[in-house]
Amino acid sequence: MKLILIIDILGTIAFAISGVLTALNKRLDPFGILIIAFVTAVGGGTLRDILIDAPVAWMRDLTYVYVIFLATVLAVIFRKRLNHIRRSLFLFDTIGIALYTIVGVEKGIAAGFHPIICVALGTMTACFGGVIRDILCNEIPIIFRKEIYATACILGATAYFLLHATPISENFIVVISGSIIFIVRLLAVYFKLSLPSIYRKDEIQD
Amino acid sequence: MKLILIIDILGTIAFAISGVLTALNKRLDPFGILIIAFVTAVGGGTLRDILIDAPVAWMRDLTYVYVIFLATVLAVIFRKRLNHIRRSLFLFDTIGIALYTIVGVEKGIAAGFHPIICVALGTMTACFGGVIRDILCNEIPIIFRKEIYATACILGATAYFLLHATPISENFIVVISGSIIFIVRLLAVYFKLSLPSIYRKDEIQD
Amino acid sequence: MKLILIIDILGTIAFAISGVLTALNKRLDPFGILIIAFVTAVGGGTLRDILIDAPVAWMRDLTYVYVIFLATVLAVIFRKRLNHIRRSLFLFDTIGIALYTIVGVEKGIAAGFHPIICVALGTMTACFGGVIRDILCNEIPIIFRKEIYATACILGATAYFLLHATPISENFIVVISGSIIFIVRLLAVYFKLSLPSIYRKDEIQD
Repeated sequence: MKLILIIDILGTIAFAISGVLTALNKRLDPFGILIIAFVTAVGGGTLRDILIDAPVAWMRDLTYVYVIFLATVLAVIFRKRLNHIRRSLFLFDTIGIALYTIVGVEKGIAAGFHPIICVALGTMTACFGGVIRDILCNEIPIIFRKEIYATACILGATAYFLLHATPISENFIVVISGSIIFIVRLLAVYFKLSLPSIYRKDEIQD
Repeated sequence: MKLILIIDILGTIAFAISGVLTALNKRLDPFGILIIAFVTAVGGGTLRDILIDAPVAWMRDLTYVYVIFLATVLAVIFRKRLNHIRRSLFLFDTIGIALYTIVGVEKGIAAGFHPIICVALGTMTACFGGVIRDILCNEIPIIFRKEIYATACILGATAYFLLHATPISENFIVVISGSIIFIVRLLAVYFKLSLPSIYRKDEIQD
Repeated sequence: MKLILIIDILGTIAFAISGVLTALNKRLDPFGILIIAFVTAVGGGTLRDILIDAPVAWMRDLTYVYVIFLATVLAVIFRKRLNHIRRSLFLFDTIGIALYTIVGVEKGIAAGFHPIICVALGTMTACFGGVIRDILCNEIPIIFRKEIYATACILGATAYFLLHATPISENFIVVISGSIIFIVRLLAVYFKLSLPSIYRKDEIQD
């Protein structure tokens, strides 16, 4: 239980920092940076909670608010050094999307939704904070354009359901499906994989 | 009843394909294309359901999810040939907005809202999928800039209420107000009508 | 009571007009202008109501709808002369954000949220209409980039809570915290204050 909480907070920190980096890149002011960090970290979960008509998590548990605030302040102050911990950050972020996906899937199940919708809710939890971040920063969301990111979440969330047809225990299913997301994302970045392009050469030119 | 279901699905297909075309134009990857198709088809209804605090339709009835998925895959594969069926597509789309508008109005009435709010909910159901599509693709929503689109929905939805003051039967009112939307939109595209410009020549220059 | 209602409506008018000005600037058509005016005036409160799962105010009380419609039509017709009343407009807008902030804070308290979340809800009520306006017009939200705007709301909302630890009466607390927002914003514009830049010279160049 405690381990999951720590991983959750590390994931939140990684998401918040990714928001700070985008906001710094757009030269936003301190208030703008804070909002973007916040939205990146909790946006996906908030959208999920609105869609399933559940209470919004961060509005009842202030831990996230404090963590995001602290992460933002520290990230702005030490932004020059973020390069040095880029690898650790990427690791947190990857653990974060794995965990966020499983949390989203389980919330969907608890609310009685069909597995396909639960997979969508899990992917949304992990990915839509970044989508809102990019919209607020006036960019086409990066996950619509390149990198295997959402695909990793979809694979892991699907595995979560398939494994329930086996005698594997609940806890172990969470670990396996979370690991699938983690490993697929890791391999994708390491080998610079992206989804197969559907465009022919002459379509890409312009 | 069955006819309405078929029209609804044809409308959903037309909306999904319009999303695919926009996404292809922005060179999005397969995941991005799917999300844009999905949002275009169900975004307006989702926003309406959130505003009136009703359960979100596509999360409980997976028909839409399957239809959109299939339409997206086929539209991507046969994108070269979409030009040949452009007219049929436009027809479906126009039937779609007519139907979506009436659905939105009736959901508003069922939830006990004032006619003006119901007209707004109907227009939103038909038009805001396209608005969210354009925002995600980093464009100013096209319906804010040109073409008579929302105006057709507003006219039809208003007629829906005015006709209730007459002895015309319920079913017939639906047909008439839906037809108004369909015909206004058709005429607008055929004669290239748009809302009267409020800008003087010297305002447009820059 | 009546005074607050009048101030509320003046604030709504000021917000709607700020939406009209942005929309005119983007050369939107009449429908687009109306939607932007509407969203600017009620967007912040709508987002707040969705997050705290309360009924959306303007959907039940049509006063706002009528006021925004009228303000939009008049603003479009007399847009040339808006310059002459720029100062009055700014005054209304500033009174508006002060009032909107307090309304948001009190709705948060009524729903049983922690003071920090209530401050966030108040600031959101006052500021997020403008954020949605800027997103729809394909701009990075202005309050993320410059000017002391949200900061004034945060200061006033925080004062609202601190003052409750004193024996000052409820009504007086509302007046003081509202005035803080009003005065901070006024001074910020008058002295062209913005949040301290966190960027060094060499970071801003590019």
